[in-house]
Amino acid sequence: MSKKLFAAGLVLALSAGFALPAAAQVKPDVLVKQRQAKMTLQAKYVGPLAAMAQGKIPYNAEVVKHNAAFLEALSQMAWDGFDASTQGVKSQALPAIWKEPGKFKEAQERNERAAAELVAATKGGDEAKVKAAIGAYGKTCGGCHEDFREKQQ
Amino acid sequence: MSKKLFAAGLVLALSAGFALPAAAQVKPDVLVKQRQAKMTLQAKYVGPLAAMAQGKIPYNAEVVKHNAAFLEALSQMAWDGFDASTQGVKSQALPAIWKEPGKFKEAQERNERAAAELVAATKGGDEAKVKAAIGAYGKTCGGCHEDFREKQQ
Repeated sequence: MSKKLFAAGLVLALSAGFALPAAAQVKPDVLVKQRQAKMTLQAKYVGPLAAMAQGKIPYNAEVVKHNAAFLEALSQMAWDGFDASTQGVKSQALPAIWKEPGKFKEAQERNERAAAELVAATKGGDEAKVKAAIGAYGKTCGGCHEDFREKQQ
Repeated sequence: MSKKLFAAGLVLALSAGFALPAAAQVKPDVLVKQRQAKMTLQAKYVGPLAAMAQGKIPYNAEVVKHNAAFLEALSQMAWDGFDASTQGVKSQALPAIWKEPGKFKEAQERNERAAAELVAATKGGDEAKVKAAIGAYGKTCGGCHEDFREKQQ
């Protein structure tokens, strides 16, 4: 591999992980804690939006806009926490994550895309479209949990 | 208070909290978990930048840019988790948080501002300025911990 190609590959690898040191150098239990932290915050910020989309609480465009921006950032965080080194750490992650990495990657990308689309919808300001985008985003969470997370009690 | 003023106040309140239902309606242990999740992710994304600023690992402008954007979003999250209702929940939060709310609020704002300034520095592309901005950001973390978090063992 030429030096240039190697350098390009390195930049790509780092961009994908968004973090140094690489996941492999971080202790598995820390990686699990970080990826769980991301999910905790996603739940915090999607919860009220789901309630609005379902008409359980009043729609508030400002809150949706703020939370959507947070969700877009969070959707890109800590995927590197699903490193193979973490398979021995107790969590709700299913072995399918490491058995079907391509399918898991697609599920990640669907979540990231849906968050970006939700942000775009909030900029348009059409409440019905925003609510649809909230629903679509929620489906990407649920879909990933369906395939890659232990069933909840 | 006029209806208009009240509405403006409500929007401000919601913007500050960025989340519905209001913190007071979320269980105290959940609020603590959420604010700790934010700190976990801040540590994840500032760690490598601190190492770069200190010359411990090679400087990588792409990683700095990505992580800085994440830190900016994270710097605004979950402050509402320091609700008075959480005072009984075991954590490292010191009573000063609720005894000196004005001082705590200023510390929050310094952190948010430093994160925004770090993002701005990464856009400028001057490595020395970026490293200085990383250091300044780190000081706002440490300063807040100094006053408002139990001393670490």
